[in-house]
Amino acid sequence: EERSKKHHLFQGSPQIQLSDQKQKFNKCPTKTGHLSLSRSISQSSTDSYRSVCSESSEDESSPKDKLQKTLKGLSDFCIKNIKQADFGRREIEIAQQEMPALMALRKRAGGEKPLSGAKVVGCTHITAQTAVLIETLCVLGAQCRWAACNIYSTQNAVAAALAEGGTPIFAWRGESENDFWWCIDRCVCADSWQPNMILDDGGDLTHWIYKKYPSLFKRLKGIVEESVTGIYRLYQLSKTGRLCVPAINVNDSVTKQKFDNLYCCKESLLKGLKRTTDVMFGGKQVVVCGYGGVGKGCCASLKAMGAIVYVTEVDPICALQACMDGFRVTTLCEVVKQVDVVITCTGNKSVVRREHLDRMKNGCIVCNMGHSNTEIDLESIRTAELRWEHVRTQVHHVIWPDGKRVVLLAEGRLLNLSCSTVPSFVLSITAATQALALIELFNAPEGRYKHDVYLLPKKMDEYVASLHLSIFDAHLSELTDDQAKYLGIKKQGPFKPTYYR
Amino acid sequence: EERSKKHHLFQGSPQIQLSDQKQKFNKCPTKTGHLSLSRSISQSSTDSYRSVCSESSEDESSPKDKLQKTLKGLSDFCIKNIKQADFGRREIEIAQQEMPALMALRKRAGGEKPLSGAKVVGCTHITAQTAVLIETLCVLGAQCRWAACNIYSTQNAVAAALAEGGTPIFAWRGESENDFWWCIDRCVCADSWQPNMILDDGGDLTHWIYKKYPSLFKRLKGIVEESVTGIYRLYQLSKTGRLCVPAINVNDSVTKQKFDNLYCCKESLLKGLKRTTDVMFGGKQVVVCGYGGVGKGCCASLKAMGAIVYVTEVDPICALQACMDGFRVTTLCEVVKQVDVVITCTGNKSVVRREHLDRMKNGCIVCNMGHSNTEIDLESIRTAELRWEHVRTQVHHVIWPDGKRVVLLAEGRLLNLSCSTVPSFVLSITAATQALALIELFNAPEGRYKHDVYLLPKKMDEYVASLHLSIFDAHLSELTDDQAKYLGIKKQGPFKPTYYR
Amino acid sequence: EERSKKHHLFQGSPQIQLSDQKQKFNKCPTKTGHLSLSRSISQSSTDSYRSVCSESSEDESSPKDKLQKTLKGLSDFCIKNIKQADFGRREIEIAQQEMPALMALRKRAGGEKPLSGAKVVGCTHITAQTAVLIETLCVLGAQCRWAACNIYSTQNAVAAALAEGGTPIFAWRGESENDFWWCIDRCVCADSWQPNMILDDGGDLTHWIYKKYPSLFKRLKGIVEESVTGIYRLYQLSKTGRLCVPAINVNDSVTKQKFDNLYCCKESLLKGLKRTTDVMFGGKQVVVCGYGGVGKGCCASLKAMGAIVYVTEVDPICALQACMDGFRVTTLCEVVKQVDVVITCTGNKSVVRREHLDRMKNGCIVCNMGHSNTEIDLESIRTAELRWEHVRTQVHHVIWPDGKRVVLLAEGRLLNLSCSTVPSFVLSITAATQALALIELFNAPEGRYKHDVYLLPKKMDEYVASLHLSIFDAHLSELTDDQAKYLGIKKQGPFKPTYYR
Amino acid sequence: EERSKKHHLFQGSPQIQLSDQKQKFNKCPTKTGHLSLSRSISQSSTDSYRSVCSESSEDESSPKDKLQKTLKGLSDFCIKNIKQADFGRREIEIAQQEMPALMALRKRAGGEKPLSGAKVVGCTHITAQTAVLIETLCVLGAQCRWAACNIYSTQNAVAAALAEGGTPIFAWRGESENDFWWCIDRCVCADSWQPNMILDDGGDLTHWIYKKYPSLFKRLKGIVEESVTGIYRLYQLSKTGRLCVPAINVNDSVTKQKFDNLYCCKESLLKGLKRTTDVMFGGKQVVVCGYGGVGKGCCASLKAMGAIVYVTEVDPICALQACMDGFRVTTLCEVVKQVDVVITCTGNKSVVRREHLDRMKNGCIVCNMGHSNTEIDLESIRTAELRWEHVRTQVHHVIWPDGKRVVLLAEGRLLNLSCSTVPSFVLSITAATQALALIELFNAPEGRYKHDVYLLPKKMDEYVASLHLSIFDAHLSELTDDQAKYLGIKKQGPFKPTYYR
Repeated sequence: EERSKKHHLFQGSPQIQLSDQKQKFNKCPTKTGHLSLSRSISQSSTDSYRSVCSESSEDESSPKDKLQKTLKGLSDFCIKNIKQADFGRREIEIAQQEMPALMALRKRAGGEKPLSGAKVVGCTHITAQTAVLIETLCVLGAQCRWAACNIYSTQNAVAAALAEGGTPIFAWRGESENDFWWCIDRCVCADSWQPNMILDDGGDLTHWIYKKYPSLFKRLKGIVEESVTGIYRLYQLSKTGRLCVPAINVNDSVTKQKFDNLYCCKESLLKGLKRTTDVMFGGKQVVVCGYGGVGKGCCASLKAMGAIVYVTEVDPICALQACMDGFRVTTLCEVVKQVDVVITCTGNKSVVRREHLDRMKNGCIVCNMGHSNTEIDLESIRTAELRWEHVRTQVHHVIWPDGKRVVLLAEGRLLNLSCSTVPSFVLSITAATQALALIELFNAPEGRYKHDVYLLPKKMDEYVASLHLSIFDAHLSELTDDQAKYLGIKKQGPFKPTYYR
Repeated sequence: EERSKKHHLFQGSPQIQLSDQKQKFNKCPTKTGHLSLSRSISQSSTDSYRSVCSESSEDESSPKDKLQKTLKGLSDFCIKNIKQADFGRREIEIAQQEMPALMALRKRAGGEKPLSGAKVVGCTHITAQTAVLIETLCVLGAQCRWAACNIYSTQNAVAAALAEGGTPIFAWRGESENDFWWCIDRCVCADSWQPNMILDDGGDLTHWIYKKYPSLFKRLKGIVEESVTGIYRLYQLSKTGRLCVPAINVNDSVTKQKFDNLYCCKESLLKGLKRTTDVMFGGKQVVVCGYGGVGKGCCASLKAMGAIVYVTEVDPICALQACMDGFRVTTLCEVVKQVDVVITCTGNKSVVRREHLDRMKNGCIVCNMGHSNTEIDLESIRTAELRWEHVRTQVHHVIWPDGKRVVLLAEGRLLNLSCSTVPSFVLSITAATQALALIELFNAPEGRYKHDVYLLPKKMDEYVASLHLSIFDAHLSELTDDQAKYLGIKKQGPFKPTYYR
Repeated sequence: EERSKKHHLFQGSPQIQLSDQKQKFNKCPTKTGHLSLSRSISQSSTDSYRSVCSESSEDESSPKDKLQKTLKGLSDFCIKNIKQADFGRREIEIAQQEMPALMALRKRAGGEKPLSGAKVVGCTHITAQTAVLIETLCVLGAQCRWAACNIYSTQNAVAAALAEGGTPIFAWRGESENDFWWCIDRCVCADSWQPNMILDDGGDLTHWIYKKYPSLFKRLKGIVEESVTGIYRLYQLSKTGRLCVPAINVNDSVTKQKFDNLYCCKESLLKGLKRTTDVMFGGKQVVVCGYGGVGKGCCASLKAMGAIVYVTEVDPICALQACMDGFRVTTLCEVVKQVDVVITCTGNKSVVRREHLDRMKNGCIVCNMGHSNTEIDLESIRTAELRWEHVRTQVHHVIWPDGKRVVLLAEGRLLNLSCSTVPSFVLSITAATQALALIELFNAPEGRYKHDVYLLPKKMDEYVASLHLSIFDAHLSELTDDQAKYLGIKKQGPFKPTYYR
Repeated sequence: EERSKKHHLFQGSPQIQLSDQKQKFNKCPTKTGHLSLSRSISQSSTDSYRSVCSESSEDESSPKDKLQKTLKGLSDFCIKNIKQADFGRREIEIAQQEMPALMALRKRAGGEKPLSGAKVVGCTHITAQTAVLIETLCVLGAQCRWAACNIYSTQNAVAAALAEGGTPIFAWRGESENDFWWCIDRCVCADSWQPNMILDDGGDLTHWIYKKYPSLFKRLKGIVEESVTGIYRLYQLSKTGRLCVPAINVNDSVTKQKFDNLYCCKESLLKGLKRTTDVMFGGKQVVVCGYGGVGKGCCASLKAMGAIVYVTEVDPICALQACMDGFRVTTLCEVVKQVDVVITCTGNKSVVRREHLDRMKNGCIVCNMGHSNTEIDLESIRTAELRWEHVRTQVHHVIWPDGKRVVLLAEGRLLNLSCSTVPSFVLSITAATQALALIELFNAPEGRYKHDVYLLPKKMDEYVASLHLSIFDAHLSELTDDQAKYLGIKKQGPFKPTYYR
């Protein structure tokens, strides 16, 4: 039983950390501020956004000290600057176009209001894409209060637009640790309002309620959690018998996994590399460490762009897949001298070590597409004899005594989050899954879910996928009665067992 | 519990039939002779083989009526013509080169003879590749007796080589139904020899023993079964409590599934089409029905060759994958008028129906890469007003009254088995899995396996993969102690949970 | 001036032989019988054809000794067996479907009969595809007499169908050298019929007329020649002032070159290798010698199938293209030890030498996609210490004293001609170009063409391409008057200069 | 004769304007400032650069009014701010790593100083990459004076670094028209220095000398010109007999053409689209107008990323290539309603017109990869009823009365120049070709070149390619004497005729 739960963490995701090391909250971000970012969360679009709406001229005063009101006179929010609402609204509208599932949900379920009565307290990144989610929940009948799950990732203008639209929102870019918890607390603890659903990303909100308002759990219908870290915490609670509501793990649904790993990384790797280095891929030799979902995506796009790709693997099955897909499988030691780019996507730690870095050739680019910032052993190159030069945004040259330069991107953090953006369309999958998970938990008959962690039912997973087909003008075929009988399944699905990938 | 077993049948394989219709033995082949062929079995190489060793001049007498002896004087076998042994031996040697895992097993385990004491009765296709398997089992210490699982697929020269090599073998191409059972019976029931292991492909051997020698099961250590049909039968036995030995399902291991569906079909589709039609792929419009493993492989290679590919799907998750992979998802009705080729790989029945065939353009090619021969509704075109013309081997023109011709390949049977060959390398995966399954069952401590149907342990699956890496000169990386601890797994694996695909 | 002509020979075609060595006629075929086969000629479809219409049972008598008549009583032909006409007609009909340009020409120009009055003597391979050409010429008004340009390549049933259809045809498979010239002579020298156009492939027909009937040239409107060898001869005649009619070189038109080299080889390589060896491409290491048009096609398809491809080149521009396209450029010496397949497409000689063959690993496959059979130095392995074993059709094992086997395909001849087939669609390009060249020469006003060798006008080349678009349901855009003026070209083309590739 | 020259303009480049319309100097830039930018020139790296070295805080005074000195006391230059030299030097050093050919030239030819005595006046974009070129010319012995060919494209810090390094440089970002000609004049007309070579990009420098210092031509050894526009002007001079020195057209060398069109666009399209729109390519429907070199590159990368690509063409040969490469060829009218992205690369004008824009769906992205900014008919949408919204840098929403938005990138200018960057490696090809052209003209024996426009000799083109192979660790093969003789070429090349592509 315990094993099967552990496996959920594993599912299809080589980059998930299962160590027993103590989880730290992101109230203590490292210098990079991305400690608790799981793959599926991103500061999507922040940078394009910034080009229009520069934040440099913003005043330095704390939002907590300011009294702001929306045009309608509302003041139950705390954000940077309500005047940016128009900018934010435009970003939200752009995001809506690439998030067809939520927009379809608004249409299909807007009339029957399946979340009528739901009081959702949320804690996620505050971006244009989550704004589309939050406002969809409202259209479906929910009342929402929202805080940021990361002190750096809030798009202030989007927060303004949400506030202006009537959502009580408590978030700004550059919160202090105290601010962070204060914002969460303001969401949970409102006058004459008590949450009955939690939508969390990282587990901090859940943690706060456990610690400060444990009595709330009696009224809670359930928790929807997206991040690897948050899910790990929930499984820990479950294992030790302390989980006292049902929870749905939206991270490990098939649709989400495929998109976040294979398809999204396939595209965002190229963007991240191009943006930081102007490297031309044609003919470049690249080694990709790890051939799980992320590695497969990276290798496919690099090969398509004309790079010569080597793969390193520990798992013989993935290694054999790499072979059959046309990649030389080798060890990092064997190729590190000749390659132009090293990319990690193992989910492991210390995959690129000083011994490898020492042997790289001048100008070799090193970056990480895998989990957190453990894959490249940075400590080993933060030493006296090596000089670090910050040459461009997210680009360091680490310079050896003989003048050799290694080009380190994003200081080893996730390239696709740090130097690229996650397309709205990818986030749409996650957001739709979150919305459906809330609907499922809120409307489930007594007893369907116990105090445990669940995957979204296959049927729902298929439904999320179906909601995204319209954007491609894709037309599904339908089983005839006869065919359904022949296959032994229902005409409307589920078409595959839960673990089909 | 029951559901989880049913799922094994499903695993990763959209083309598996789960209906409750009565299974028929292949002793009653249809006109096509391939009724019980599952995907993973093939008449591999038969045709190249034929080019060297024509069988047309063989005499017509029944092998049962002839007394033949090997050079060493052995006569415990029944085959077509012992004089073809040299030809067969060369084909076996060629196959050995592409079957590195079995050859490695011979080296690694040959000394310790892990099958010493095993008495294996086998019933499979008799081809160069299975010959490599059989002789490997012998090197590992087993005593084997072997019959054919299909009355048409035996390579007579290979059978001769096996006999000459000392294996009691009872098989020839073109057996009658009586011959078929007679051969099986001669394998099971030998003087002073009783089997303690079964290696079956299709379940006929198992069925025979159940029916005629039920007492044998007391001594049996287990059954290794490869075909979908055979596995279905075993699950039926298990469900009804009549399975009285452990059985291993080798069909559904990850490695085998990936190879048989994705990688093998990717290559064999092109060969099958080229061989029968000389079609040029560049610019041709093709619709592929079904985007499971087989469909993914077909689409990938067609796209790579410059075809314009449309996909039909019933499952929204697979449909979304097709979209992201760059294929238009549509219904067959919508595109059937414009396409040059229609390929089925759904595992379903009546996917291409008369209504579609009526709308195809002149010269449209129709073929099946999916399951059995149910996908194209042939009955609907075996009608008086349509004329069938047999224009080449495995190619029919079906001619409409207005002169329109539809090009039907292999009469709707599996194109890759009928008009192509399965590379030895792919069969190597299956054969190695079978050998390891025998070793596992034979050596498992009392109690590890109950009277149930098992998948090969993940560790073994990874081992099969690792045995195939040498042919690619692929070098695996090894986890450090620290990394293994970080990931929470053992250094030697298993690296992924059982259901990782 | 002389240089510019030499360049025509070169154009886009790395595999063309420019040596001053004496050209030999194919009346003296090597053991392989393919000496003078240029890339663009093939025994297309012969093999599929054979599967239906076995020739093994044919009688051994010489066609010259037999009196045969068509159903209509015609007897002005000499072929193997007029009774095979029905078989041949079906093959012709199948070929018609993939040759849209000729069929379109029949429709468009059939009414005005642009070849009315043309008396064409032809000498080409006699295949279903050339049959479509010959019969198209007749529909356009020409009278034709035809011989075979190769003693081995005639499809007897097709010849029968042509004869039955009324074309005087003199050709059969397996002609002797005397037969070969006798057939040509019978075509040239008919009662009350003198040719005024030549369609040649290899130059033997032209040579014969030069030698025996020089006076015929006075009436000749021109020569259309397709083969590299034949064109070389024509340029030699032109250089030395002995060419006494205009000639059109159809080999070097853009459309034909692209198809024959890039697109056709891309597909036929895979077929040739699969057919002979059952090799699985995924993960195999392959070295392709030469990155011209043929090499580019081979590399593209191998990469697409999952092979790891190395390229060798002497030309730095082609080498740089290979790099940018994602291939490691290296020397044969450096990689020959590790590769699974060696493919030559350089147009050069002795590219693969004994020193390379000695270092290949066991089972390495060696084949040639380039020019003639000079690329692999066969002499160096026809030595006493190496044993040759003929294992399958077109497959030899060359066995070293230590047991190492090198797999040699087609004895070093062109793989795509020997072990594959050229799709009708590719031959359609050539045939349409030939037909248009005949029309152009026959109808050209006095003085447009001098006694020189010409390329087809760009406009005609574009016309050939346009005739092939319908099969893809492709729709051309049209320039507006304004756009044409802006570009400084005519609305109907030519759109590019002659040398645009 | 005249025609053949016209053809040079054409060569391999469908996007070149050949109209007789009056050429305008770039002293009169449109609003976009890119009027005279040919494909091969770019503001490479400007933007990454900007991220480090913001220019916003620079003072507004004119450089002409400031007296600046280098550390060594030199003052013969006029730039924005000499203090930015360090920043600029680092950018130059980064560029050097991707420009192996120039660095190799420095090494190989640095000793013999082939440009000793050359006095080169140059007028190009002033970027890190041209800085590498200029400094290479100096290492080879030349004395250089340099101005900018575009008033917007100068990287001020790079100009500072060049000045600090001792090159008299006269350029800054944001010159006025007067400044522009003043800078050129200061380069040409220096105390005791008269140019004997011209390196021009756009023809403005050449024009100025023609107009103001015609007597200089007596001493001039030649002109090296890179841009389409400048070359057009030179051919005009040549045609009318007014060209009084030899000129080399570096734009049309094979190596440069292939890189600038096929390889560079293949990569920069993706970057440009990702950067501006965050669009996910997988499954998106895209129409590419034009299938020349640029179109082929765009289509290849879009297909590789999973987009469904349609092609429009006017030339049937290119259309047929598109078909064979797996693209549906259709007209813009037919698909414009359904596509997500429209990309022009025709070299033509008004390819996308109001009638197409009116039918696009909401959110459709429109951009130009072709020539100049004529391809999209912007005038037709600069009308009162349509609202333009500037949503991000280089991104406009054009809003129809019904709310439909079309996303217009870079206002129809070249996407890869406006929203992406050209990799240094691509510019390396151009720069090396320019350097070799200067060396060739400067050292050519009297009489080798007449007063005409020449392409770089094939041998030099091959040399440029060879200098770029080292970065890929590519190893060329060498012809044996025997092979060279067989092919009828020299061992060291040229290996192909001039027009081989």
